Amino acid sequence: MASTEIPDIVIGRLPVYLRALSLMAAAGQEITSSHELGEKLGISSAQIRKDLSHFGEFGKQGTGYRISHLQDQLRRILKVDREWPVALIGIGDVGQALVRYGGFRNRGFRIVAAFDADPAKVGQPIGDLTIQDVATLPEVVREQNVQIAMIAAPAKVAQDVADLCVKGGVRAILNYAPINLAVPEGVRVQYTDPVTHLQRMTYYLV
Amino acid sequence: MASTEIPDIVIGRLPVYLRALSLMAAAGQEITSSHELGEKLGISSAQIRKDLSHFGEFGKQGTGYRISHLQDQLRRILKVDREWPVALIGIGDVGQALVRYGGFRNRGFRIVAAFDADPAKVGQPIGDLTIQDVATLPEVVREQNVQIAMIAAPAKVAQDVADLCVKGGVRAILNYAPINLAVPEGVRVQYTDPVTHLQRMTYYLV
Repeated sequence: MASTEIPDIVIGRLPVYLRALSLMAAAGQEITSSHELGEKLGISSAQIRKDLSHFGEFGKQGTGYRISHLQDQLRRILKVDREWPVALIGIGDVGQALVRYGGFRNRGFRIVAAFDADPAKVGQPIGDLTIQDVATLPEVVREQNVQIAMIAAPAKVAQDVADLCVKGGVRAILNYAPINLAVPEGVRVQYTDPVTHLQRMTYYLV
Repeated sequence: MASTEIPDIVIGRLPVYLRALSLMAAAGQEITSSHELGEKLGISSAQIRKDLSHFGEFGKQGTGYRISHLQDQLRRILKVDREWPVALIGIGDVGQALVRYGGFRNRGFRIVAAFDADPAKVGQPIGDLTIQDVATLPEVVREQNVQIAMIAAPAKVAQDVADLCVKGGVRAILNYAPINLAVPEGVRVQYTDPVTHLQRMTYYLV
Protein backbone atom coordinates (compact mmCIF):
# COMPACT_ATOMS: atom_id res chain seq x y z
CA MET A 1 0.00 0.00 0.00
CA ALA A 2 1.47 3.36 -1.00
CA SER A 3 1.10 6.15 1.57
CA THR A 4 -0.59 8.33 -0.99
CA GLU A 5 -3.60 6.03 -1.24
CA ILE A 6 -4.87 6.72 2.27
CA PRO A 7 -6.56 10.05 3.00
CA ASP A 8 -4.68 12.26 5.47
CA ILE A 9 -7.86 12.61 7.51
CA VAL A 10 -7.68 8.84 8.20
CA ILE A 11 -4.01 9.11 9.17
CA GLY A 12 -4.99 11.94 11.51
CA ARG A 13 -7.37 9.65 13.42
CA LEU A 14 -4.84 6.88 14.01
CA PRO A 15 -2.91 8.75 16.75
CA VAL A 16 -6.24 9.37 18.50
CA TYR A 17 -7.03 5.65 18.39
CA LEU A 18 -3.55 4.87 19.65
CA ARG A 19 -3.92 7.26 22.59
CA ALA A 20 -7.27 5.76 23.57
CA LEU A 21 -5.82 2.23 23.36
CA SER A 22 -2.86 3.23 25.52
CA LEU A 23 -5.22 4.54 28.19
CA MET A 24 -7.16 1.26 28.14
CA ALA A 25 -3.94 -0.75 28.32
CA ALA A 26 -2.72 1.37 31.23
CA ALA A 27 -5.96 0.52 33.03
CA GLY A 28 -5.24 -3.19 32.56
CA GLN A 29 -7.75 -3.82 29.77
CA GLU A 30 -6.74 -6.41 27.12
CA ILE A 31 -9.57 -6.48 24.57
CA THR A 32 -11.68 -3.73 23.03
CA SER A 33 -14.12 -3.30 20.16
CA SER A 34 -14.75 -0.70 17.50
CA HIS A 35 -17.98 -0.02 19.36
CA GLU A 36 -16.23 0.73 22.67
CA LEU A 37 -13.52 2.81 20.98
CA GLY A 38 -16.17 4.72 19.09
CA GLU A 39 -18.12 5.44 22.27
CA LYS A 40 -15.01 6.79 23.96
CA LEU A 41 -14.00 8.95 21.03
CA GLY A 42 -17.32 10.09 19.62
CA ILE A 43 -16.61 8.42 16.28
CA SER A 44 -18.89 5.80 14.73
CA SER A 45 -17.73 2.19 15.03
CA ALA A 46 -18.22 1.82 11.26
CA GLN A 47 -15.77 4.69 10.69
CA ILE A 48 -13.19 3.07 12.95
CA ARG A 49 -13.49 -0.29 11.19
CA LYS A 50 -13.23 1.42 7.81
CA ASP A 51 -10.17 3.43 8.87
CA LEU A 52 -8.37 0.34 10.15
CA SER A 53 -9.34 -1.75 7.13
CA HIS A 54 -6.99 0.41 5.01
CA PHE A 55 -4.12 -1.35 6.79
CA GLY A 56 -5.29 -4.97 7.03
CA GLU A 57 -7.22 -7.13 9.47
CA PHE A 58 -6.71 -6.35 13.15
CA GLY A 59 -9.60 -8.15 14.84
CA LYS A 60 -11.86 -11.11 14.36
CA GLN A 61 -15.56 -10.60 13.77
CA GLY A 62 -17.29 -10.77 17.13
CA THR A 63 -14.19 -11.08 19.31
CA GLY A 64 -12.93 -7.50 19.08
CA TYR A 65 -9.35 -6.25 19.03
CA ARG A 66 -6.45 -7.40 21.18
CA ILE A 67 -5.34 -4.00 22.48
CA SER A 68 -1.59 -4.73 22.61
CA HIS A 69 -1.61 -6.09 19.07
CA LEU A 70 -3.54 -3.13 17.72
CA GLN A 71 -1.21 -0.73 19.55
CA ASP A 72 1.82 -2.44 17.98
CA GLN A 73 0.30 -2.26 14.53
CA LEU A 74 -0.67 1.40 14.84
CA ARG A 75 2.79 2.27 16.16
CA ARG A 76 4.33 0.49 13.17
CA ILE A 77 1.98 2.20 10.69
CA LEU A 78 2.64 5.64 12.21
CA LYS A 79 6.39 4.87 12.47
CA VAL A 80 6.46 5.63 16.18
CA ASP A 81 7.81 2.16 16.99
CA ARG A 82 11.09 4.07 17.17
CA GLU A 83 12.26 7.34 18.76
CA TRP A 84 12.40 10.42 16.53
CA PRO A 85 14.77 13.23 17.54
CA VAL A 86 12.96 16.57 17.70
CA ALA A 87 14.25 20.16 17.70
CA LEU A 88 12.47 22.80 19.78
CA ILE A 89 12.76 26.45 18.86
CA GLY A 90 11.66 29.25 21.21
CA ILE A 91 12.17 28.76 24.93
CA GLY A 92 9.38 30.94 26.33
CA ASP A 93 6.34 29.69 28.29
CA VAL A 94 5.28 27.24 25.59
CA GLY A 95 8.80 26.00 24.94
CA GLN A 96 9.37 25.38 28.64
CA ALA A 97 6.06 23.55 28.92
CA LEU A 98 7.10 21.34 26.00
CA VAL A 99 10.46 20.51 27.57
CA ARG A 100 8.71 19.51 30.80
CA TYR A 101 5.86 17.70 29.01
CA GLY A 102 5.85 14.05 30.07
CA GLY A 103 3.77 12.90 27.14
CA PHE A 104 6.57 12.41 24.59
CA ARG A 105 8.15 9.46 26.41
CA ASN A 106 7.34 6.09 24.87
CA ARG A 107 5.25 7.76 22.20
CA GLY A 108 7.97 8.12 19.62
CA PHE A 109 9.67 11.45 20.30
CA ARG A 110 12.53 13.01 22.21
CA ILE A 111 13.58 16.66 22.22
CA VAL A 112 17.31 16.54 21.46
CA ALA A 113 18.03 20.20 20.75
CA ALA A 114 16.58 23.49 22.03
CA PHE A 115 17.14 26.84 20.37
CA ASP A 116 16.44 30.50 21.06
CA ALA A 117 17.55 33.80 19.53
CA ASP A 118 17.89 35.63 22.87
CA PRO A 119 21.60 35.93 23.84
CA ALA A 120 20.50 35.88 27.51
CA LYS A 121 19.00 32.41 27.03
CA VAL A 122 21.66 30.85 24.78
CA GLY A 123 23.99 28.69 26.90
CA GLN A 124 21.44 28.28 29.71
CA PRO A 125 20.30 24.79 30.72
CA ILE A 126 16.77 23.62 29.96
CA GLY A 127 15.93 20.15 31.22
CA ASP A 128 18.87 17.94 30.15
CA LEU A 129 19.77 20.27 27.30
CA THR A 130 21.60 23.53 26.79
CA ILE A 131 19.84 26.26 24.82
CA GLN A 132 21.63 26.84 21.53
CA ASP A 133 21.74 29.86 19.24
CA VAL A 134 19.03 29.54 16.60
CA ALA A 135 21.53 30.72 13.99
CA THR A 136 23.32 27.38 14.37
CA LEU A 137 20.11 25.40 13.83
CA PRO A 138 20.56 24.23 10.22
CA GLU A 139 23.98 22.78 11.02
CA VAL A 140 22.95 21.20 14.33
CA VAL A 141 19.78 19.53 13.10
CA ARG A 142 21.49 18.24 9.97
CA GLU A 143 24.30 16.76 12.08
CA GLN A 144 21.80 15.04 14.42
CA ASN A 145 19.56 13.95 11.55
CA VAL A 146 16.58 15.79 13.05
CA GLN A 147 13.58 15.71 10.72
CA ILE A 148 11.00 17.10 13.13
CA ALA A 149 10.80 20.56 14.72
CA MET A 150 8.41 22.28 17.11
CA ILE A 151 8.28 26.04 16.67
CA ALA A 152 7.26 27.95 19.79
CA ALA A 153 8.87 31.22 18.73
CA PRO A 154 6.98 34.54 18.45
CA ALA A 155 4.79 34.96 15.36
CA LYS A 156 6.97 37.65 13.83
CA VAL A 157 10.02 35.37 13.59
CA ALA A 158 8.27 32.02 13.07
CA GLN A 159 8.67 32.07 9.28
CA ASP A 160 12.40 32.79 9.58
CA VAL A 161 12.71 29.92 12.04
CA ALA A 162 10.80 27.62 9.68
CA ASP A 163 13.18 28.59 6.86
CA LEU A 164 16.14 27.65 9.05
CA CYS A 165 14.49 24.32 9.87
CA VAL A 166 13.90 23.54 6.21
CA LYS A 167 17.48 24.51 5.44
CA GLY A 168 18.63 21.97 8.01
CA GLY A 169 16.58 19.16 6.49
CA VAL A 170 13.51 19.26 8.73
CA ARG A 171 10.47 17.73 7.02
CA ALA A 172 7.77 17.98 9.70
CA ILE A 173 6.95 21.09 11.73
CA LEU A 174 4.55 21.50 14.62
CA ASN A 175 3.85 25.23 14.76
CA TYR A 176 2.65 26.96 17.94
CA ALA A 177 2.95 30.46 16.49
CA PRO A 178 -0.40 31.87 15.33
CA ILE A 179 0.61 32.25 11.68
CA ASN A 180 0.52 30.05 8.60
CA LEU A 181 3.98 28.98 7.48
CA ALA A 182 5.13 28.79 3.88
CA VAL A 183 7.24 25.67 3.33
CA PRO A 184 8.41 23.84 0.22
CA GLU A 185 6.65 20.76 -1.13
CA GLY A 186 7.55 17.69 0.89
CA VAL A 187 7.59 19.53 4.22
CA ARG A 188 4.51 19.07 6.41
CA VAL A 189 3.20 21.58 8.94
CA GLN A 190 0.67 20.94 11.70
CA TYR A 191 -0.76 23.93 13.53
CA THR A 192 -1.75 24.07 17.13
CA ASP A 193 -3.79 27.15 17.94
CA PRO A 194 -6.21 27.17 20.89
CA VAL A 195 -8.56 29.51 19.04
CA THR A 196 -9.26 27.18 16.11
CA HIS A 197 -10.17 24.47 18.64
CA LEU A 198 -12.44 26.84 20.57
CA GLN A 199 -14.11 28.17 17.42
CA ARG A 200 -14.95 24.64 16.38
CA MET A 201 -16.98 24.29 19.61
CA THR A 202 -18.74 27.66 19.73
CA TYR A 203 -20.59 26.65 16.58
CA TYR A 204 -22.57 24.25 18.79
CA LEU A 205 -23.17 26.63 21.71
CA VAL A 206 -26.28 28.74 22.08
CA MET B 1 -30.26 24.68 8.18
CA ALA B 2 -29.99 22.77 11.45
CA SER B 3 -26.52 22.44 12.96
CA THR B 4 -26.88 18.69 12.99
CA GLU B 5 -26.97 18.50 9.20
CA ILE B 6 -23.39 19.62 8.73
CA PRO B 7 -20.55 17.20 9.48
CA ASP B 8 -18.30 18.24 12.36
CA ILE B 9 -15.29 17.76 10.11
CA VAL B 10 -16.61 20.62 7.95
CA ILE B 11 -17.15 22.81 11.01
CA GLY B 12 -13.57 22.03 12.02
CA ARG B 13 -12.22 23.50 8.78
CA LEU B 14 -14.09 26.82 9.05
CA PRO B 15 -11.78 28.26 11.77
CA VAL B 16 -8.81 27.37 9.57
CA TYR B 17 -10.36 29.26 6.65
CA LEU B 18 -11.11 32.18 8.94
CA ARG B 19 -7.52 32.33 10.16
CA ALA B 20 -6.15 32.28 6.61
CA LEU B 21 -8.59 35.04 5.57
CA SER B 22 -7.56 37.17 8.56
CA LEU B 23 -3.92 36.88 7.56
CA MET B 24 -4.77 37.96 4.00
CA ALA B 25 -6.85 40.87 5.31
CA ALA B 26 -4.03 41.94 7.63
CA ALA B 27 -1.76 42.04 4.57
CA GLY B 28 -4.20 44.41 2.83
CA GLN B 29 -5.69 41.87 0.44
CA GLU B 30 -9.40 42.33 -0.40
CA ILE B 31 -10.33 39.45 -2.71
CA THR B 32 -9.41 35.77 -2.70
CA SER B 33 -10.50 32.56 -4.41
CA SER B 34 -11.09 29.00 -3.34
CA HIS B 35 -8.04 28.17 -5.43
CA GLU B 36 -5.77 30.60 -3.55
CA LEU B 37 -7.16 29.55 -0.16
CA GLY B 38 -6.68 25.91 -1.08
CA GLU B 39 -3.08 26.51 -2.14
CA LYS B 40 -2.32 28.21 1.17
CA LEU B 41 -3.97 25.51 3.26
CA GLY B 42 -3.22 22.35 1.32
CA ILE B 43 -6.93 21.65 0.79
CA SER B 44 -8.52 21.26 -2.65
CA SER B 45 -10.47 24.24 -3.95
CA ALA B 46 -13.41 21.90 -4.63
CA GLN B 47 -13.46 20.91 -0.94
CA ILE B 48 -13.45 24.56 0.15
CA ARG B 49 -16.33 25.44 -2.21
CA LYS B 50 -18.27 22.40 -1.02
CA ASP B 51 -17.68 23.25 2.66
CA LEU B 52 -18.86 26.83 2.19
CA SER B 53 -21.87 25.79 0.10
CA HIS B 54 -23.41 24.27 3.23
CA PHE B 55 -23.97 27.82 4.45
CA GLY B 56 -25.05 29.67 1.32
CA GLU B 57 -23.44 31.60 -1.52
CA PHE B 58 -20.37 33.63 -0.59
CA GLY B 59 -18.77 34.45 -3.94
CA LYS B 60 -19.65 34.90 -7.56
CA GLN B 61 -18.39 32.46 -10.17
CA GLY B 62 -15.17 33.85 -11.58
CA THR B 63 -14.85 36.88 -9.29
CA GLY B 64 -13.81 35.11 -6.07
CA TYR B 65 -14.65 35.99 -2.49
CA ARG B 66 -14.65 39.41 -0.88
CA ILE B 67 -12.44 38.63 2.12
CA SER B 68 -14.16 40.95 4.61
CA HIS B 69 -17.59 39.58 3.69
CA LEU B 70 -16.48 35.96 3.98
CA GLN B 71 -14.81 36.72 7.33
CA ASP B 72 -18.05 38.27 8.61
CA GLN B 73 -20.08 35.28 7.49
CA LEU B 74 -17.68 32.72 8.99
CA ARG B 75 -17.59 34.65 12.28
CA ARG B 76 -21.38 34.65 12.34
CA ILE B 77 -21.61 30.93 11.50
CA LEU B 78 -19.02 30.03 14.16
CA LYS B 79 -20.66 32.46 16.61
CA VAL B 80 -17.41 34.33 17.21
CA ASP B 81 -18.97 37.64 16.14
CA ARG B 82 -19.22 38.13 19.92
CA GLU B 83 -16.84 37.62 22.87
CA TRP B 84 -17.17 34.39 24.86
CA PRO B 85 -15.97 34.40 28.46
CA VAL B 86 -13.53 31.55 29.11
CA ALA B 87 -12.32 29.92 32.33
CA LEU B 88 -8.74 28.71 32.59
CA ILE B 89 -7.80 25.99 35.06
CA GLY B 90 -4.20 25.19 35.96
CA ILE B 91 -1.72 28.05 36.13
CA GLY B 92 1.52 26.23 35.32
CA ASP B 93 3.66 26.75 32.20
CA VAL B 94 0.80 26.11 29.80
CA GLY B 95 -1.72 28.16 31.77
CA GLN B 96 0.68 31.10 31.91
CA ALA B 97 1.32 30.83 28.19
CA LEU B 98 -2.43 30.89 27.58
CA VAL B 99 -2.92 34.00 29.72
CA ARG B 100 -0.16 35.77 27.78
CA TYR B 101 -1.31 34.45 24.40
CA GLY B 102 -2.20 37.37 22.17
CA GLY B 103 -4.26 35.30 19.75
CA PHE B 104 -7.59 35.36 21.62
CA ARG B 105 -8.20 39.06 21.08
CA ASN B 106 -10.72 39.85 18.34
CA ARG B 107 -11.17 36.14 17.67
CA GLY B 108 -14.13 35.62 20.00
CA PHE B 109 -12.65 34.77 23.39
CA ARG B 110 -11.52 36.36 26.64
CA ILE B 111 -10.19 34.59 29.71
CA VAL B 112 -12.31 35.97 32.56
CA ALA B 113 -11.40 33.60 35.38
CA ALA B 114 -8.25 31.66 36.29
CA PHE B 115 -8.17 28.78 38.78
CA ASP B 116 -5.60 26.61 40.49
CA ALA B 117 -5.65 24.13 43.39
CA ASP B 118 -2.30 25.22 44.83
CA PRO B 119 -2.84 27.41 47.94
CA ALA B 120 0.44 29.19 47.13
CA LYS B 121 -1.01 30.33 43.79
CA VAL B 122 -4.56 31.19 44.87
CA GLY B 123 -4.86 34.95 45.37
CA GLN B 124 -1.84 35.73 43.19
CA PRO B 125 -2.27 37.99 40.16
CA ILE B 126 -2.03 36.56 36.64
CA GLY B 127 -2.39 39.11 33.85
CA ASP B 128 -5.42 41.24 34.77
CA LEU B 129 -6.91 38.43 36.88
CA THR B 130 -6.47 36.96 40.33
CA ILE B 131 -6.02 33.20 40.61
CA GLN B 132 -9.04 31.66 42.32
CA ASP B 133 -9.42 28.42 44.24
CA VAL B 134 -10.57 25.68 41.87
CA ALA B 135 -13.06 24.53 44.54
CA THR B 136 -15.05 27.70 43.87
CA LEU B 137 -15.16 27.06 40.12
CA PRO B 138 -18.74 25.80 39.69
CA GLU B 139 -20.15 28.83 41.49
CA VAL B 140 -17.90 31.36 39.76
CA VAL B 141 -18.42 30.12 36.22
CA ARG B 142 -22.17 29.82 36.70
CA GLU B 143 -22.31 33.38 38.01
CA GLN B 144 -20.31 34.70 35.05
CA ASN B 145 -22.22 32.54 32.56
CA VAL B 146 -19.00 30.88 31.38
CA GLN B 147 -19.68 28.05 28.94
CA ILE B 148 -16.09 27.45 27.81
CA ALA B 149 -13.12 26.18 29.81
CA MET B 150 -9.48 25.44 29.04
CA ILE B 151 -7.97 22.76 31.26
CA ALA B 152 -4.21 23.02 31.69
CA ALA B 153 -4.12 21.09 34.96
CA PRO B 154 -2.00 17.95 35.52
CA ALA B 155 -3.37 14.72 33.99
CA LYS B 156 -4.14 13.14 37.36
CA VAL B 157 -6.63 15.87 38.35
CA ALA B 158 -7.94 16.80 34.90
CA GLN B 159 -11.04 14.60 35.17
CA ASP B 160 -11.96 16.13 38.56
CA VAL B 161 -11.51 19.59 37.07
CA ALA B 162 -13.70 18.65 34.10
CA ASP B 163 -16.40 17.45 36.52
CA LEU B 164 -16.29 20.81 38.31
CA CYS B 165 -16.58 22.60 34.97
CA VAL B 166 -19.60 20.54 33.96
CA LYS B 167 -21.15 21.17 37.38
CA GLY B 168 -20.81 24.91 36.74
CA GLY B 169 -22.53 24.72 33.36
CA VAL B 170 -19.52 24.58 31.05
CA ARG B 171 -20.38 23.00 27.69
CA ALA B 172 -17.11 23.23 25.76
CA ILE B 173 -13.70 22.16 27.07
CA LEU B 174 -10.30 22.53 25.48
CA ASN B 175 -8.13 19.97 27.24
CA TYR B 176 -4.33 20.29 27.42
CA ALA B 177 -3.91 17.34 29.80
CA PRO B 178 -2.83 14.15 28.01
CA ILE B 179 -5.91 12.13 28.99
CA ASN B 180 -9.35 11.56 27.51
CA LEU B 181 -12.11 13.19 29.55
CA ALA B 182 -15.48 11.62 30.27
CA VAL B 183 -18.24 14.22 29.98
CA PRO B 184 -22.01 14.01 29.72
CA GLU B 185 -23.87 14.26 26.42
CA GLY B 186 -24.10 17.86 25.28
CA VAL B 187 -20.61 18.77 26.48
CA ARG B 188 -17.88 18.95 23.82
CA VAL B 189 -14.19 18.33 24.37
CA GLN B 190 -11.34 19.22 22.06
CA TYR B 191 -7.90 17.82 22.79
CA THR B 192 -4.62 19.50 22.15
CA ASP B 193 -1.73 17.07 22.45
CA PRO B 194 1.54 17.72 20.61
CA VAL B 195 2.13 14.00 20.18
CA THR B 196 -1.00 13.31 18.14
CA HIS B 197 0.05 16.13 15.79
CA LEU B 198 3.58 14.76 15.52
CA GLN B 199 2.39 11.18 14.98
CA ARG B 200 0.23 12.34 12.11
CA MET B 201 3.38 13.58 10.37
CA THR B 202 5.79 10.71 11.07
CA TYR B 203 3.57 8.51 8.92
CA TYR B 204 4.92 10.43 5.93
CA LEU B 205 8.58 10.47 6.97
CA VAL B 206 11.10 7.89 5.82
